[in-house]
Amino acid sequence: MEISHIEHIGIAVKSLEEAIPFYENVLGLKCYNIEEVKDQKVKTAFFKVGQTKIELLESTDPEGAVGKFIEKKGEGLHHMAFAVKNIENCLDEAQNKDVKLIDLKPRKGAEGLNIAFLHPKSTFGVLTEFCESQEGASR
Amino acid sequence: MEISHIEHIGIAVKSLEEAIPFYENVLGLKCYNIEEVKDQKVKTAFFKVGQTKIELLESTDPEGAVGKFIEKKGEGLHHMAFAVKNIENCLDEAQNKDVKLIDLKPRKGAEGLNIAFLHPKSTFGVLTEFCESQEGASR
Repeated sequence: MEISHIEHIGIAVKSLEEAIPFYENVLGLKCYNIEEVKDQKVKTAFFKVGQTKIELLESTDPEGAVGKFIEKKGEGLHHMAFAVKNIENCLDEAQNKDVKLIDLKPRKGAEGLNIAFLHPKSTFGVLTEFCESQEGASR
Repeated sequence: MEISHIEHIGIAVKSLEEAIPFYENVLGLKCYNIEEVKDQKVKTAFFKVGQTKIELLESTDPEGAVGKFIEKKGEGLHHMAFAVKNIENCLDEAQNKDVKLIDLKPRKGAEGLNIAFLHPKSTFGVLTEFCESQEGASR
């Protein structure tokens, strides 16, 4: 499989409103987009740092994955997403190598990208996401 | 402060020997260095993905920070490190903005870089590291 870079780092926060000023005023990054991803029960805020985005995730539903994560582990690093060229091939390859998948097929994530998650049980505890880079998308 | 990119992502694992094959054989990344950082009580394995390194951390002492992290939270994403130009200025700026620091002064980390950690209580749960980019080092 061909991974070009880390597309984004997902960070679970209790409140975007409280966390954004740290990234903007202390780290000097700029929040360029706020978007609700209803499917994932989160509201997201995006920053760009070099090749990689930081994606802050505020839960919109305590029963969603991010809500449960914060309840169990507190705020913090939530997932790591790799930019890949052909996401369906990557999922097939991972599955052929006995990696457990959360998403058997890609679905639409934030910013309209095709995404899929691998299960942290197969990835040494890291919730790992593939994001299809727009150049590599066949749709 | 001037952050150019994410220098590395630190990931706590129980065993480098078990985790490295996932990164190499499934994700297709190449482990280019294994190094013990005695000061931090870890053995580290490095992979490069675009601008960013993935740094797997195996504890060498259950009383070390990574050993305690795994005991409490299990394997997974441990910290996020930003490449900065003048680390001492960045620490001063963070402290002036009421961010709690773990390291008041930079120290030597893996690969000989000048590094310092911010306290996760001030960074919405994310253990955040500054790494001085070699171009920006005054030493």
